[in-house]
Amino acid sequence: MAKKRLIPFGLLKIPINRELFQVKAKGVGLPPGSLIHVGKQKAEKPVINLIDYDQTHFETFTDISLDEVVACRETTSVSWINLSGIHDVKLIEEFGKRFDIHPLALEDILNTHHRPKLDEHEGFCLIILKMLFFDEEMQTLETEQISLLLGQHYVISFQELEGDVFDGVRDRLQRSSGRIRQRGPDYLAYALIDSIVDSYFHILEKVGDKLVQLEDQLISNPDASMLATIHHYKRELLLLRKSVWPLREVVSQMHKETSPLISEDTQIYLRDLYDHSVQVIDTLEIFRDTITGLQDLYMSSVSNRMNEIMKVLTIMASIFIPLTFIAGVYGMNFEYMPELKWRGGYFMAWGLMAGCAIGMVIYFKRNKWL
Amino acid sequence: MAKKRLIPFGLLKIPINRELFQVKAKGVGLPPGSLIHVGKQKAEKPVINLIDYDQTHFETFTDISLDEVVACRETTSVSWINLSGIHDVKLIEEFGKRFDIHPLALEDILNTHHRPKLDEHEGFCLIILKMLFFDEEMQTLETEQISLLLGQHYVISFQELEGDVFDGVRDRLQRSSGRIRQRGPDYLAYALIDSIVDSYFHILEKVGDKLVQLEDQLISNPDASMLATIHHYKRELLLLRKSVWPLREVVSQMHKETSPLISEDTQIYLRDLYDHSVQVIDTLEIFRDTITGLQDLYMSSVSNRMNEIMKVLTIMASIFIPLTFIAGVYGMNFEYMPELKWRGGYFMAWGLMAGCAIGMVIYFKRNKWL
Amino acid sequence: MAKKRLIPFGLLKIPINRELFQVKAKGVGLPPGSLIHVGKQKAEKPVINLIDYDQTHFETFTDISLDEVVACRETTSVSWINLSGIHDVKLIEEFGKRFDIHPLALEDILNTHHRPKLDEHEGFCLIILKMLFFDEEMQTLETEQISLLLGQHYVISFQELEGDVFDGVRDRLQRSSGRIRQRGPDYLAYALIDSIVDSYFHILEKVGDKLVQLEDQLISNPDASMLATIHHYKRELLLLRKSVWPLREVVSQMHKETSPLISEDTQIYLRDLYDHSVQVIDTLEIFRDTITGLQDLYMSSVSNRMNEIMKVLTIMASIFIPLTFIAGVYGMNFEYMPELKWRGGYFMAWGLMAGCAIGMVIYFKRNKWL
Amino acid sequence: MAKKRLIPFGLLKIPINRELFQVKAKGVGLPPGSLIHVGKQKAEKPVINLIDYDQTHFETFTDISLDEVVACRETTSVSWINLSGIHDVKLIEEFGKRFDIHPLALEDILNTHHRPKLDEHEGFCLIILKMLFFDEEMQTLETEQISLLLGQHYVISFQELEGDVFDGVRDRLQRSSGRIRQRGPDYLAYALIDSIVDSYFHILEKVGDKLVQLEDQLISNPDASMLATIHHYKRELLLLRKSVWPLREVVSQMHKETSPLISEDTQIYLRDLYDHSVQVIDTLEIFRDTITGLQDLYMSSVSNRMNEIMKVLTIMASIFIPLTFIAGVYGMNFEYMPELKWRGGYFMAWGLMAGCAIGMVIYFKRNKWL
Amino acid sequence: MAKKRLIPFGLLKIPINRELFQVKAKGVGLPPGSLIHVGKQKAEKPVINLIDYDQTHFETFTDISLDEVVACRETTSVSWINLSGIHDVKLIEEFGKRFDIHPLALEDILNTHHRPKLDEHEGFCLIILKMLFFDEEMQTLETEQISLLLGQHYVISFQELEGDVFDGVRDRLQRSSGRIRQRGPDYLAYALIDSIVDSYFHILEKVGDKLVQLEDQLISNPDASMLATIHHYKRELLLLRKSVWPLREVVSQMHKETSPLISEDTQIYLRDLYDHSVQVIDTLEIFRDTITGLQDLYMSSVSNRMNEIMKVLTIMASIFIPLTFIAGVYGMNFEYMPELKWRGGYFMAWGLMAGCAIGMVIYFKRNKWL
Repeated sequence: MAKKRLIPFGLLKIPINRELFQVKAKGVGLPPGSLIHVGKQKAEKPVINLIDYDQTHFETFTDISLDEVVACRETTSVSWINLSGIHDVKLIEEFGKRFDIHPLALEDILNTHHRPKLDEHEGFCLIILKMLFFDEEMQTLETEQISLLLGQHYVISFQELEGDVFDGVRDRLQRSSGRIRQRGPDYLAYALIDSIVDSYFHILEKVGDKLVQLEDQLISNPDASMLATIHHYKRELLLLRKSVWPLREVVSQMHKETSPLISEDTQIYLRDLYDHSVQVIDTLEIFRDTITGLQDLYMSSVSNRMNEIMKVLTIMASIFIPLTFIAGVYGMNFEYMPELKWRGGYFMAWGLMAGCAIGMVIYFKRNKWL
Repeated sequence: MAKKRLIPFGLLKIPINRELFQVKAKGVGLPPGSLIHVGKQKAEKPVINLIDYDQTHFETFTDISLDEVVACRETTSVSWINLSGIHDVKLIEEFGKRFDIHPLALEDILNTHHRPKLDEHEGFCLIILKMLFFDEEMQTLETEQISLLLGQHYVISFQELEGDVFDGVRDRLQRSSGRIRQRGPDYLAYALIDSIVDSYFHILEKVGDKLVQLEDQLISNPDASMLATIHHYKRELLLLRKSVWPLREVVSQMHKETSPLISEDTQIYLRDLYDHSVQVIDTLEIFRDTITGLQDLYMSSVSNRMNEIMKVLTIMASIFIPLTFIAGVYGMNFEYMPELKWRGGYFMAWGLMAGCAIGMVIYFKRNKWL
Repeated sequence: MAKKRLIPFGLLKIPINRELFQVKAKGVGLPPGSLIHVGKQKAEKPVINLIDYDQTHFETFTDISLDEVVACRETTSVSWINLSGIHDVKLIEEFGKRFDIHPLALEDILNTHHRPKLDEHEGFCLIILKMLFFDEEMQTLETEQISLLLGQHYVISFQELEGDVFDGVRDRLQRSSGRIRQRGPDYLAYALIDSIVDSYFHILEKVGDKLVQLEDQLISNPDASMLATIHHYKRELLLLRKSVWPLREVVSQMHKETSPLISEDTQIYLRDLYDHSVQVIDTLEIFRDTITGLQDLYMSSVSNRMNEIMKVLTIMASIFIPLTFIAGVYGMNFEYMPELKWRGGYFMAWGLMAGCAIGMVIYFKRNKWL
Repeated sequence: MAKKRLIPFGLLKIPINRELFQVKAKGVGLPPGSLIHVGKQKAEKPVINLIDYDQTHFETFTDISLDEVVACRETTSVSWINLSGIHDVKLIEEFGKRFDIHPLALEDILNTHHRPKLDEHEGFCLIILKMLFFDEEMQTLETEQISLLLGQHYVISFQELEGDVFDGVRDRLQRSSGRIRQRGPDYLAYALIDSIVDSYFHILEKVGDKLVQLEDQLISNPDASMLATIHHYKRELLLLRKSVWPLREVVSQMHKETSPLISEDTQIYLRDLYDHSVQVIDTLEIFRDTITGLQDLYMSSVSNRMNEIMKVLTIMASIFIPLTFIAGVYGMNFEYMPELKWRGGYFMAWGLMAGCAIGMVIYFKRNKWL
Repeated sequence: MAKKRLIPFGLLKIPINRELFQVKAKGVGLPPGSLIHVGKQKAEKPVINLIDYDQTHFETFTDISLDEVVACRETTSVSWINLSGIHDVKLIEEFGKRFDIHPLALEDILNTHHRPKLDEHEGFCLIILKMLFFDEEMQTLETEQISLLLGQHYVISFQELEGDVFDGVRDRLQRSSGRIRQRGPDYLAYALIDSIVDSYFHILEKVGDKLVQLEDQLISNPDASMLATIHHYKRELLLLRKSVWPLREVVSQMHKETSPLISEDTQIYLRDLYDHSVQVIDTLEIFRDTITGLQDLYMSSVSNRMNEIMKVLTIMASIFIPLTFIAGVYGMNFEYMPELKWRGGYFMAWGLMAGCAIGMVIYFKRNKWL
């Protein structure tokens, strides 16, 4: 999970999401393909689950050993092997040996700060994606890396943690509803990626709701804390963008390159997936435009309010300054001040002051400052 | 119709259009091709109309059942089937079965938050577009999704609501004027899209008028409410843009890809349509530039006005501050203040004050601050 | 001519050019190729002129009828038919019939809000361009649409008004100087477009002069009116840009596509023309950068001036505020104020005040605020 | 040389460089290929110099006539003909006839406001470039157009003025050092262009130094004059950019197009040249980013300083305003004011005032405004 | 090392990194391929080291002469020749002769201000890259140019200074671990570039940490010094960008062009390297976005704070100005002021003042200014 802290900002707290600044930094000079786990250990113990199915049979194995997994490799049925917890480098290495995975691919799987991408290797395809979760309490996005290995008869998914967005796929497999049981691992991989993209829509929906709330608040009652909130969402959108933009390329690559692992029947579904990822990006860009617009609106409305206050001061000061001066003049203690002796002097002074004040008001009115 | 509310902004109301934030969020884990209606139910009951024509005959059927529609499929005449009200998933599914429509296409038709696009399927083409209406009262744009299915002998149009921009096309069909009766369904599809693009011009015309009004008001009498109005139109343009940009791609795709469904004779019309959609986008971008310019002008003119007010205060305060000080000095009550005893002391004080004031005015004049 | 008004802006008038907001809006539902004149009727009555020439002969016909024009079609000499005044839809339709012009092309010719473009049709090429005129008095750009039809043996030019930038071409034809009489209609079309591009340079020259003036004024004597002037020129440049950018595409298309109507000899001239249009765009972009720079400079210089004024107030107020306070203290009427009785009390008070003032001045100097 | 003036800007002078606004405007309607000199006449009298060389011989002719030049054409040795002073249209025309130069090329040579470009013609290549000089005194860039005609056995260079950046090339030719004497005219053209690009580096170096100075000054002692200076360098960079960007295209074109005039041996040098021109552009863009950063820094530091000053005023005013009010109260002349009679009234008043002041200071401290 | 100075900025020091402004400026007119060292001499004396290895043997030679190096050329084992200190032009020239290096390549090696690039020459490939070091004390980036010559059996690396990021590679060579000893010089070159890219990740990590610190500080305690710090990091990122962007092109070129020097086995590693360089750029762009966001946040929070202060002044002044005026009025010395004689006059005055104050407070509350 991302490092987060609550930091006082004036009178309010904003959660700081450090995810954006995380960069992979494996030891300098390590040879390429060195297996090092980069990122936080999120799961306690790696757990391997296996779902093996074809059109007619369906079996689930929970928390099995690697040897049991390999046993499945012989069959022509589709095996979906899921590993939760990728910090156990030994285990990953073992996986690599049993399934002939190139060391560079293993390195990428272990590095949880990787950019979404698709690599074709001999005999398998590596797809790296980000699962996103929206933490309602902290209003932050959590990212979890998921790597899919698409092989001839299997899909292996590597997750950081148990708990994912694939329950729908598991249901469909079990219920044997729809196409999924009649198709190969390429369709399974598609179904998994589709689940991830669908979950992005959910996150966009939540962020969209927040933006609406923000706009309401900004219009009805703008205060200084909103600036930090705007800054916060801007960064969450930056993080979302970082995960989503490369996804589009990944899907487009799957759609265009004619890997022998992806059957032609699945192509039409990939096109649909591509449309969805474009839609996610479109919405994201509109959100970014909107939040920039909100910032502008905030700045302008703050400055408008400031101006109004300043105007009041200006007008009051401008009116009273000469009046106070007149009062000051007749408060002088000179012995010979003829006006002071006059019977109506006091009222004359009032008249003078009233005249001044009225003159100023008329002047301001004429200039439309009042 | 889009969710809208009136929200107080300082002393003014701006309508908030939530359309921009709407994202599709079908249930996570549902298999692709699951038929779920996404969006608001706008029509009460789906209504199917059918227009069947060729060069010599023309027939209209109103509010018919699906079975009656399918009967038409056998003929070689062109059938335009229009369905208003797409919330009835069962009906759409039935449509799908009778016309051999791919489930992914049906899913797209049902999802009213879709991005305009063109998908070629076997035997038919799916074109998704947005109809736009300008709500004069609220000054907001309403969008309605329209999906066109272009087949060998038919065009099916799926609308959310009765009431569209196609009355002109219906007239031309009935009057048998122009080319339309001599051509196939590809020309009909073109004519429908052309009507939609034409309606965009009408909306641009209205928005353009509003911008002119806005500019007039901004120049003659800028006030704080204009900021919200500018923000409002900016968002309407964003919404317009969201619908129009993909449209261009759709038309370009139709023009370039040589689908067997689109005859060569229709190509020249598609090129013309492409020109029109480019023109819509051009105008849109100019409007966006203009509105940004208006915002700048507003900010500057507000700040100019503020500056003028501040200048008056500054000058008045700077002149009166020393005068008031002098008056204060001679208002002190020391027993031994020689000036107070002087016969001309009072007039000397006036002279001093006048001198100060004149000096300040000269100083300001020289610096061109007055 | 464009709609224009003089609108008070503070104390100054700026002409408003509505051209930018004009959008074509032909009636919804009209079939494509419907002939409707879009725009203002500028000429009173359409006038047809004809110049017929080849290497050896040259003839001019003024204000002739369409029948006389068609008579010329038989010859192999080059005919330049010019129609001023395109509001007469009937006449244009007649033209279309006689010269076999596609209805879509006719529609484009009649729509004076069209974007510059090049369409190749069977037997002819349609080129739509904008002539620009700079109205010195109003400081605005006027646009006039010109459509060129390039056929096998003729060029037809459709103008909105009599009066154009082609007098040079007519001269050269008459004087039989240069290449023009030895070449075909493609060279004539090139010569006409070249004249238009040349006229753009003239307009750029004038706008450049205005920018220089603006900069001079801004540096020597910036006042509030300049903001509106800057805004005005920004929009004129936007309008210029709208006409010039598509022009480049048109020329590039002519240069690259090998239409049978354009001979290879003319290609080298088109390359030159392309260079010129690129240069126009380059200059335009530099002007836009410059005007943005001017706006920045204006805003900064206004804010600098404001700051200076504020500084004076601040310093004066800061110095006099404590002095006035001291004077106020000794103006209090308490019965027992020992200082008042002192012989040197008055001078002590002066000393105190002088000390305060000097202290403040030193403090300000040290902080470099003075 | 460019038009320049010294214009007062507040208290400082900035040189205005009009070069940016210069646009070619040859007479409307002149036929293409019309020979008109566009620009200022810089040289008094055109001077033709000739260097004729091959591997074994080297000859220099100074201020010769055109006839003598043509005599050289017969030989197979390489001739570098240099013409300084291109205002003499007759002479250029004569050149054109003798060397079979296309009129459009001659027109381009005569128009000194041309954009850098490369045109391939039959038998020769025309390369138009800008030489830049940095005027130390005025801190402005001077541009001079140079056109190179690369033919089978010759290079003709057309300059506006005597004095160029080619002395190094002349030296190398004379000393017969390096490859230059063993190669053909294509290598000579390359060497000339290389000299020009090298001179750009010198200019960048000088501008870089100025930016460093500017930054130093801005950080140590920002004043209002810097704004104008920043504006000035921004425009010089704009001018530099206008000359340099097209240069890259020219070199890239030379490198990619396989003209028979450019031997394969020279290609590797052109690639190197291309790298250099990319580096010039890179540096230029970094300079532009930097100067924008400086402007931001200036604006912020000015506004910071302003804020500090305002804060002082605010705090002083806020503290003294209530104090002065108290003093005013006890300066009132009511007959029955009990406090005035109290023995300790005066000290009580002082206590009250001190209490107020201390309270305000504590309040400000707590809010971290002090 | 880059020129750096500490310059007072208000009350703080920021280190100025001049690296960005450095441009190559070799003497004008020098022939291409002239060998001149451009940059600062960093090492005292050039040192040549050699590592010679194949699958079975491994030898290291330290500080050897060029003759000894050349002796190695005969063998088919892989030689990694490293030269630290490139200011000795003679030595480089000698290298060039012995290894048949093109003079242009030598020129590039000597010019330490070069842009990262890849040039294919006959028999070898020249790769120019930047090593970056982060100077913790000064918080600046140091760049050092490194040129790799990849030949048939050797890799030559030219460094400016001893000390690099290749210790990991040396270790792996010595330990004979991994693939490196079984592969050719292309894999060695890859390993070296990979080390450099890995070191960029370390720098990004450090810069990321600084940005986090900056953000913390900005939120908890923004002061004027932060502006300079933000400006400083912006420039460091600009410098980083200047080195990293061309790197991506270099790696992409290596990956795509099929040079005979790069074996197919190495391609997969280059793809991985390309992914890494894309990730570096992605992170860099996010940092740039973030720092821009920080600047915005800083400006807004400063302006917010200013506004709060101004509000206090405004409110205090607005309340006290009328009160002071009232006190002034009753401090006038007219003989006939009826109120002064009233028994309750003094209290009436207090009441009046209290009324005024309360009225103002209510007014402000109602306007939500308090």
